[in-house]
Amino acid sequence: MSEDKRERLYLFDTTLRDGAQTSGVDFSVEEKAVIARMLDDLGVDYVEGGYPGANPVDTEFFSSCPGFKRATFTAFGMTKRAGRSAANDPGLAGLFDSKAKAICLVAKSWDYHVDVALGITNEENLESISESVTAVAERGLEPMIDCEHFFDGYKSNPEYALACAKAAYDSGARWVVLCDTNGGTLPDEVEAIVTEVVKHVPGTHLGIHAHNDTEHAVANSLAAVRAGARQIQGTLNGIGERCGNANLVSLIPTLLLKPGYAERFETGMTTEDLGSLSHVSHNFDEILNRAPDRQAPYVGDSAFATKAGIHASAILKEPETYEHIVPECVGNRRRVLVSDQAGKSNLLAELQRVGLKVEKDDPRLGRLLDEVKEREAIGYAYEAADVSFELLARRMLDSVPEFFRVESFRVLVERRYNALGNLVTASEATVKVTVDDETMISVGEGNGPVNALDVALRKDLGKYQPYIDDLELVDFKVRILNGGTSATTRVLVESADGEGRRWFTVGVSPNIVDASFQALIDSVTYKLLRDGAPAP
Amino acid sequence: MSEDKRERLYLFDTTLRDGAQTSGVDFSVEEKAVIARMLDDLGVDYVEGGYPGANPVDTEFFSSCPGFKRATFTAFGMTKRAGRSAANDPGLAGLFDSKAKAICLVAKSWDYHVDVALGITNEENLESISESVTAVAERGLEPMIDCEHFFDGYKSNPEYALACAKAAYDSGARWVVLCDTNGGTLPDEVEAIVTEVVKHVPGTHLGIHAHNDTEHAVANSLAAVRAGARQIQGTLNGIGERCGNANLVSLIPTLLLKPGYAERFETGMTTEDLGSLSHVSHNFDEILNRAPDRQAPYVGDSAFATKAGIHASAILKEPETYEHIVPECVGNRRRVLVSDQAGKSNLLAELQRVGLKVEKDDPRLGRLLDEVKEREAIGYAYEAADVSFELLARRMLDSVPEFFRVESFRVLVERRYNALGNLVTASEATVKVTVDDETMISVGEGNGPVNALDVALRKDLGKYQPYIDDLELVDFKVRILNGGTSATTRVLVESADGEGRRWFTVGVSPNIVDASFQALIDSVTYKLLRDGAPAP
Repeated sequence: MSEDKRERLYLFDTTLRDGAQTSGVDFSVEEKAVIARMLDDLGVDYVEGGYPGANPVDTEFFSSCPGFKRATFTAFGMTKRAGRSAANDPGLAGLFDSKAKAICLVAKSWDYHVDVALGITNEENLESISESVTAVAERGLEPMIDCEHFFDGYKSNPEYALACAKAAYDSGARWVVLCDTNGGTLPDEVEAIVTEVVKHVPGTHLGIHAHNDTEHAVANSLAAVRAGARQIQGTLNGIGERCGNANLVSLIPTLLLKPGYAERFETGMTTEDLGSLSHVSHNFDEILNRAPDRQAPYVGDSAFATKAGIHASAILKEPETYEHIVPECVGNRRRVLVSDQAGKSNLLAELQRVGLKVEKDDPRLGRLLDEVKEREAIGYAYEAADVSFELLARRMLDSVPEFFRVESFRVLVERRYNALGNLVTASEATVKVTVDDETMISVGEGNGPVNALDVALRKDLGKYQPYIDDLELVDFKVRILNGGTSATTRVLVESADGEGRRWFTVGVSPNIVDASFQALIDSVTYKLLRDGAPAP
Repeated sequence: MSEDKRERLYLFDTTLRDGAQTSGVDFSVEEKAVIARMLDDLGVDYVEGGYPGANPVDTEFFSSCPGFKRATFTAFGMTKRAGRSAANDPGLAGLFDSKAKAICLVAKSWDYHVDVALGITNEENLESISESVTAVAERGLEPMIDCEHFFDGYKSNPEYALACAKAAYDSGARWVVLCDTNGGTLPDEVEAIVTEVVKHVPGTHLGIHAHNDTEHAVANSLAAVRAGARQIQGTLNGIGERCGNANLVSLIPTLLLKPGYAERFETGMTTEDLGSLSHVSHNFDEILNRAPDRQAPYVGDSAFATKAGIHASAILKEPETYEHIVPECVGNRRRVLVSDQAGKSNLLAELQRVGLKVEKDDPRLGRLLDEVKEREAIGYAYEAADVSFELLARRMLDSVPEFFRVESFRVLVERRYNALGNLVTASEATVKVTVDDETMISVGEGNGPVNALDVALRKDLGKYQPYIDDLELVDFKVRILNGGTSATTRVLVESADGEGRRWFTVGVSPNIVDASFQALIDSVTYKLLRDGAPAP
């Protein structure tokens, strides 16, 4: 099908509005600005920035215009109150004072809520919808209506739910958005109901706003599109109230790559935009200060990862029959995990990725595989700690300079009552390090033994100190591998540096402090290697 | 519709087999046993425990029978190799040696893979399917076939994919499972393809095995059911290779509560089983040592949480119009920013369970609830550590004797090179304890700081020593609650005694040694209390 025959599908992002309802999420004005720019760069059609007038952050954010290249800056608000003229409604006034180019107004479309929550008649509610839409249009702004509880309302009183949608459309709303506010509607119901709605309001003016309460937000969005809706509302990484909103990061690749959609529809996004998707998703988690979901569809670190050795060799030979899309299309990559189930082909693929060239029949390959298997048997987890794997491989196949040598460390944890009779806990570590021929001894305090050790270790690395100044321990995970007194402890350390790079290292020991120490040492060594620190 | 008119839908859990492909997940034999029991208690029909013969853990797990109340213990394997008789196939032999009651064999159903991956003819593959099924049936075991790459195979060569399914069914397979191995198939395609398949194999013999690569594993499973399939394969919390398998924890409530399914189908689960779902989901994450997803559909902590002030009071007044299901049906609860009654009734039930009688309007109940909420907010997990909860409650509502008092402890961890130039690590702890008016100081060595502390603490408790001689620390789990430098550490300790009793205690601190110490103290105190040790 030629490109100009494809129908246009619009992407509406509500990360900054409905996404801000996520428990634990609070955006600052600056964060809103960064995320809005990211969304515009990605290529969504609408960026709903918040509810100006409702809180100071949103009012300030809407007091200037983000200067979008492609997206339409959209404000959220409520239809005017019954009994007031649109011109005298303070809520609408706040929206009109903002720099928004489009206004999305929420309106009740379930007669039960019109009665119980608003306490007005069905007719008054329809009037409020019509007059609010007209007022927005008269200001030269793009009007849209979010029909709240549309699907539950339709199930209870289809005529009235439809009347609300029609009132919005007939008075000039560019979009009438059907909201599954409680998130309990299933895909077949969505498809059936939207199929009825398009008989009254053209699909080119219908949007879908789905929530994930039954794990169907993405499927419900596509069900509505199949039935005729042409706007999808969603959020980055599916954040949102309760179980979240429809995840645009999962929807976008399906729309752009899967033939059933890509051949029928076009969005405002190019294939180049799509290539930035993994980065956008991870960057957004960065802003939220949370670890990205490794299992996230399309963009997760594990989305194209294979653990089973039997599959691995086949995947390398014929990736297209084992992968539903080409990972690079969404800015992701294939990962063949090095694990106890691994074979040589997993290993080769991984070595190739880190830039180590080895022939398939190189005997060192077999030795490396044996070493990996032996170490995984005692608890190392190289699939999770790719940097520790890389260092191990480089040591066996090439060489890694011994930048520094830790001669000894000592960690003391104490709990006692102080002179005032208060309980105090203290952790202190001393580390003795040799760089070239110089020996340094450093001491550090921390809120626990590992923290104290980390502080002491990175206090003075002599000439290497400038290389590790921006190194940061961002997370560590502890796993006890086999319970009881003979327990082995595995520590996974996540590090980051000033350039936003993140990497994982692993240490294993019956002693948690020692395991942490190994992982910390690997992390520092990798940082020095990566940044081209000179060998001693 | 009366209950007996409903069709039976079967739930097949593959957490222990396909779920074990999750990157970072490795089950021990003991963990497999615990999870299998949990699944049987939940009420799934099949528990696929792994691939006996493929690795030592699975072989050992299948060497004894879990003694299920309801579930069928199922082993995974491969159809026999072409050119070998089923009787001489070592893979099948390993399965027959196991204690499994049902055998699920994976078979290629995409002609391309039959050629490229297996290197055999299409006919040979069909024969292998038929003969393998027959061999399983002849042993008196329930045979099923997983048709690998079924949907991709069907799109490329529908006749051959169907021939594979038919070969399995015709030779007596109880279930022919259609697998979306690459996870790229969309719900409308699944529904259309399964609709064709049921024309050749009855839906009562068809299963669906979906992956979440486009965030449609749940929707795809239901699409297949709508088209006629009557077995669903999935995993707890949707774990699995790449983006995971279909999430049974999301599917089960939809099947049991949503009229479109609940009125048409019945499963092996009762509404009482459903009430344990949130607990099962959280407990499983505990075993995986990871934080439960707060936004998980149905069972997440945020699944029925409301942040918006405007909604909150309306929800309390009319919850049924704001919540798609009643949270308690799945063992979850509503969370709003108002202190709610649900908390108190949970608490009362829990107190009753441990034998503490309190009246509903006792003011101490409110204080205990506040204390529990405050402590859970900083990281304590009383759901997992029932004994720490019991001690807290007894201290506030009754009293717990202070059998002993730890005046101070000190733990030293050292790593250095000894006189021979070998690296040695040592952990040593000293503990000063007062019992009655006697003060004792003990020292212990261990393979890590917590072990050393445990040894020192239990070395000399004076007159209480006989009570704790049979006390044993059997497991401890460490969780870092909020990454980075301000991390809080939660330690869960599992203890056991000579009578085979097991109990859990919890400690929270930025310092892992201190957190472990708290949990150890709770454990020792509980043991003394339980065994009726005299107060000092």
